[in-house]
Amino acid sequence: MNGITTSEFKTRIQRFQANLRKAGLDAALVHGNEADFANVRYLTEYWPTFEAAAVFVPARGKPVLIIGPESLTYAEGRSVVPDILKMVEYRESAEPQYPGIPVASYRDVVKRAMPGLKLKKLGIVSWSITTLPVWTRLKEDLPGVQFIKADDTLINLRIAKSKAEVALMKKAFQISEAAIDAILGEIKPGMTELQVIGIAQREIYKRGGEYEGHALYCFCGPRTNNAICRPTHNKIKRNEMIQLNIGARVGSYSSSVGLPFSIGKLPARKQDLLAFGLEAHVKTMDLMRAGKPAAAVVSEYENWVKARGYGRFMLYGPCHGIGMMEVERPWMESTSTYDLQENMTFQVDTFFYDHDFGLRWENGVRVKKGGVERLSRKHMKLVCL
Amino acid sequence: MNGITTSEFKTRIQRFQANLRKAGLDAALVHGNEADFANVRYLTEYWPTFEAAAVFVPARGKPVLIIGPESLTYAEGRSVVPDILKMVEYRESAEPQYPGIPVASYRDVVKRAMPGLKLKKLGIVSWSITTLPVWTRLKEDLPGVQFIKADDTLINLRIAKSKAEVALMKKAFQISEAAIDAILGEIKPGMTELQVIGIAQREIYKRGGEYEGHALYCFCGPRTNNAICRPTHNKIKRNEMIQLNIGARVGSYSSSVGLPFSIGKLPARKQDLLAFGLEAHVKTMDLMRAGKPAAAVVSEYENWVKARGYGRFMLYGPCHGIGMMEVERPWMESTSTYDLQENMTFQVDTFFYDHDFGLRWENGVRVKKGGVERLSRKHMKLVCL
Repeated sequence: MNGITTSEFKTRIQRFQANLRKAGLDAALVHGNEADFANVRYLTEYWPTFEAAAVFVPARGKPVLIIGPESLTYAEGRSVVPDILKMVEYRESAEPQYPGIPVASYRDVVKRAMPGLKLKKLGIVSWSITTLPVWTRLKEDLPGVQFIKADDTLINLRIAKSKAEVALMKKAFQISEAAIDAILGEIKPGMTELQVIGIAQREIYKRGGEYEGHALYCFCGPRTNNAICRPTHNKIKRNEMIQLNIGARVGSYSSSVGLPFSIGKLPARKQDLLAFGLEAHVKTMDLMRAGKPAAAVVSEYENWVKARGYGRFMLYGPCHGIGMMEVERPWMESTSTYDLQENMTFQVDTFFYDHDFGLRWENGVRVKKGGVERLSRKHMKLVCL
Repeated sequence: MNGITTSEFKTRIQRFQANLRKAGLDAALVHGNEADFANVRYLTEYWPTFEAAAVFVPARGKPVLIIGPESLTYAEGRSVVPDILKMVEYRESAEPQYPGIPVASYRDVVKRAMPGLKLKKLGIVSWSITTLPVWTRLKEDLPGVQFIKADDTLINLRIAKSKAEVALMKKAFQISEAAIDAILGEIKPGMTELQVIGIAQREIYKRGGEYEGHALYCFCGPRTNNAICRPTHNKIKRNEMIQLNIGARVGSYSSSVGLPFSIGKLPARKQDLLAFGLEAHVKTMDLMRAGKPAAAVVSEYENWVKARGYGRFMLYGPCHGIGMMEVERPWMESTSTYDLQENMTFQVDTFFYDHDFGLRWENGVRVKKGGVERLSRKHMKLVCL
């Protein structure tokens, strides 16, 4: 089961059901798609592809996995939840009709998961990616039922990681570090950003990754000032900032290592911000420990950056949750209201930018008493090839 | 612009607007996400990553691209639609709050795109992936407006491909063929399915691909009977069916080449279905030509398969549309009501399966008068390494 035991999956479902009961919900419907599969996979190990999926989890009793019309053999081979129904609302977005393939309704799902019980309040988990066909059908099939956004009942369980989860994340970070090693060994001026990504992809799969942990980044030159971007056919140049954010996924757990570097020297202004970025990256890690309010980490970080005179280069940061998704809850923002807890895992995401370049140091940490354990550390140094 | 000129993008928007007027709509809201980006990218070249996106297109006037709070620099550098607004409903699914980043409402979007005009009927395009935060906000911001599923107004424009689109697809298919060449040169018993995928990824990026065209397949042994599946850490074995479906994406256009083969001989029963599959694959191509009803291709194909005695091994098929998405409209099903037209592009998808193995021949074609042009053909032959 890719490193998570069947018994750990059962515990996840039991803890989720306890949360549903605490929230006064009779059941929850948990949505997932190809790119944003985490909540469904967390409960079932099922990872939809081409089609979407959901898990219907009653507050008491057995969950049902809901899949698209084409995925039954795949789901039977993969899901730790054995009860599986097909619904047309989870088909591919090309909306094939599948004449002759029988499909279920939400009434069938409820009957299967809660025989003899009445459904009044249904929690919706993964609200932000739940789709209109699902919503329309829910209202048609289940009139009188109250639908309530209930992301917290599940996502809060995912924030502090188990030993097995941390082990998968460490493996993922190790593969990301090895992929960066391979890039540093092979990158040459004239190569395209996308060709650099190809080196990383090769290494990720060669070393035991199951997929990329996020859309991989390699940017060179002015485009390094993008917080979000896609690599292009632009060529790698000497004496320009080169930004790598390379993340492997292992057993559903993501990672990402961010290394800004150059081939040949950078102008002093860029080199200075690069070195300050690394200092700020380490500083962030030093500010974190179990029991500390997340908002305090943010304000101490921001004040420190400003005191050092680099406030105008700061866009956001300094951390976001990482786990099954490379970016997941909780974000660390000035508005955060939670305290850091042991075994929360964060991506320390240190981004600075100017009008013509930018840089992003990224490494993962696990919160522990008195500090953090670094999930990656190999590329926390200045590199000039 | 990755092979599509700005003028072709303008034509797309004009044709879309003409369809909106014909449908009696005042405007349309077109949704896209990281994995299912086609409709947004078709109109703007913008390809969201981490966040989602939409295009608001008035029946007359200028469209507005709507993005998440983090993507402005990226979108400004990529979108051919220059008018861009940020909305929180398009943020990452981790739902960060972004204190201090100003965002727009749908009222702002309508004001910008249709100054002085009244919005009564809004078409929703990409209905199947439009999310609840978008839907909830639409109803809050635009009370009294009628929302109508309007996928046809845009997707019908994407079905027959332009010269530039066909050129990108040919390039994508060529890269897929080269990636399969590389796999055939390197695959060895003992390698994992995922390591084989790594070879393909390396080649796709090395040769000018921008991404995978779909989640790549390599399966060995019994799991080849899955219509939909994910590669695993299972090892490649001799004398077993090995299934490759390898697709590069070039300038937003997908491809996929499906080759079932073996290392060492297969048992006669499997070899026979493999060879019949290739015959059925070629037969499907021979049945296609401009002007022919799609449903006739399906029934002639199915009758031919049954007459040859292989009906029980058939799950579905024989073709689906291919373009920006590897699976897109129109599917070719017994219920299809359209005729094949020149420059429609199809993936000929020939899948046969038994209880313990399966095989899928896949190659792309462009419909023309009197037949089809094959977009890939190099691996339409029996291979035993």
